Formats: sequence, C-alpha cells, structure tokens
Amino acid sequence: MEVKSQNVVVLRWGHRPRDERLTTHVALTARALGASGMILTDAEDEGIKKSIDRVVSNWGGQFFFRMGIPWKNAVKQWRDKGDTVVHLTVYGENIQTSDVIQRIRATRKDVLVIVGSQKVPSRFFSSSVSDFNVAVGNQPYSECSCLAVFLDRFFLGQELSKEFTGARIRIVPRRHGKKVVQEAKFKS
Amino acid sequence: MEVKSQNVVVLRWGHRPRDERLTTHVALTARALGASGMILTDAEDEGIKKSIDRVVSNWGGQFFFRMGIPWKNAVKQWRDKGDTVVHLTVYGENIQTSDVIQRIRATRKDVLVIVGSQKVPSRFFSSSVSDFNVAVGNQPYSECSCLAVFLDRFFLGQELSKEFTGARIRIVPRRHGKKVVQEAKFKS
Repeated sequence: MEVKSQNVVVLRWGHRPRDERLTTHVALTARALGASGMILTDAEDEGIKKSIDRVVSNWGGQFFFRMGIPWKNAVKQWRDKGDTVVHLTVYGENIQTSDVIQRIRATRKDVLVIVGSQKVPSRFFSSSVSDFNVAVGNQPYSECSCLAVFLDRFFLGQELSKEFTGARIRIVPRRHGKKVVQEAKFKS
Repeated sequence: MEVKSQNVVVLRWGHRPRDERLTTHVALTARALGASGMILTDAEDEGIKKSIDRVVSNWGGQFFFRMGIPWKNAVKQWRDKGDTVVHLTVYGENIQTSDVIQRIRATRKDVLVIVGSQKVPSRFFSSSVSDFNVAVGNQPYSECSCLAVFLDRFFLGQELSKEFTGARIRIVPRRHGKKVVQEAKFKS
C-alpha cells in the first residue's frame, strides 16, 4: 500500500537536561507508532540513548536513535534528498479540518517530522525549512501526544498491528490481567 | 451524534513530584482532545493545577482539574453511578486489532479513563476496577501518547475541530507563520 512506502523519521529539537523523561516518551512514541527512527538534534543524552537501545533490543524492530547533530544539518540533508519536512506546531494547519495529511501523503516522499518545544526558531515555520506546518488541534498541548496522533493518522492506524521482528519479549493482549511471552529462540 | 454524549474524564494515577511536566502534558492532552476533566488521585500538585487553570482561563472551555482524591474513591463513585471504567495499559486489548473501542462506545455510558504509570496495582486490571483494559499497541510507550490516540479514536477525530467557548486568545491555523487573535470582548 502506498502509505507504507513513506518512511517517517522524527527530529526532536529543544531538548534540555530536565527533559530526559519527556524526550524518552517522544522516542518511545515514535517507535511504537511506526517511525523508523529519531534524531535528537543540538543535544546529547546518553541516558535516553541507553533506554531506547534497550527497548529495541528487547522488543524488536529496527528503530534507530541518533543524537548531537545540528538541526540545520539534519534538515539540509533531508531536503537535499528531495524529501518532505513536516513541522508539528500548534500554529499550523489543523489535521482534522484541513486536508494537510492527504497532501503530505500525496508527496509520496519520506517524511522528517520536526517535534519542537516552546520557542522554536521562527525559521521552522518558513518554507525554507518546513514544507508543511501541522497542528493536532490549535490548543496548548503536548509534543508527545501531538506526534502520536499525527503518526496514527498518517499510517491510518496500521502501525499498531505491525509485528516488531527479532523481539525477545512480546505481550499477548488480554481483556484482563497480563500476559508476556519470552520468545523461544532467546530462552536460555 | 451518539458518541458526543459520552463524557470522558481522565484519572491520573502514580504521579510523583518529578513527574510534574509529564502529568501536565497528560492534562493538556486530556483537555485538547476532548475530555471533560482530569482527577489527579493520591497526590496533590499546586504547580500543575495553576498551569491548567491558567490554560483554561486563557484558551476557554470547561475542563476541570481535581486532585488529592484516593483512586479507590474516585473509581467507586464512578462505578456506583453505573458508568464505564477504562484502563489504558500496554497489556490490554489492542485498540487497532480488536473491537474494544466499539464496545466502549456501545455502553453509551460516561467513561473514566485510568492513565497509570509503571507498576500500577494489579487490581487495576481486574473487572472489579476496569470494565475494559485497552492497549494503544502492545509496545513500550508513553501514557501521554496512549491517551491521545485513545481520545482521538474514541471521539472519531471530531474533538480537534471543536470550539472552546469563552477563550481570550485563539489561534488561526496557517500554512506558514503564526497568527494569534485576542478576542475583542477581552481586549482592554
């Protein structure tokens, strides 16, 4: 299906040391909802990298986590390939009332999704950086939930049923209680 | 429309002082995505209350924020009314591959959504507390994104186009740049 061929990578901007948990949540959201990887720009945080690498090692899939790259370089590299840049911002086109998701899909290009925080550089809004500015509602919100709804809609919900290959552990969904299985090939 | 008549209230469990930003994000997500209010159980945090009250005062709507109530009381009160309790957990029924959302809608009752954190009491999973255990994918995730996707799907996306009454400020969505208007009746 066409939409499946568009890779999505998340660019996280504006991370400060006190944001460790929030940025970890953004990365887990990116992975669980179908993104291929995340780039933490203009900052490094070994704690987050370790958490995410451990999740990937246990729960499978191919998600990558890179950090320390300046945002300008990451965006330039993406644009030089001719791919699409989306900036998630409360000021952008409303994902519900506009056709912005359809227009992003129609580019058929891979998508770099910029997830900022407060006070992003004003250049993020310009067409020299972002092809699309997308708002998940125009109310104060969380960058984490905003990314979640964007990905869920972009992938038409199908990301939530995909299998993560190479997982050591796996949850079996249940109406009540918990069931976790350890994959046989990893059992000692 | 039927779905509109079901009120959703979020119950946030497991908040610790270091979670201030995360719990604020959960509350903003609840408000932006159509919940009527949030109860922070078994903890109090004046900082979060102030942030949320300020958002409601500036951006409108009727969202309430209560805190300090023991979770057992909040759940008991809800169940005594005969309303529905949903627990968001990675171990629950997958929102994409099961019909759980349709079954919750079919109750036609108001919905209390329990958003935990790690290590919730095992009773949360039992039918004495939760009518439904719902997973937004069965991968490690963020409670914030999980709530966002649940609400977006429960309200069929319509929550993102609703107007927040009594707002002092309002964003006008734009393809590029920012536009904020101050409502005339609040101008000095």
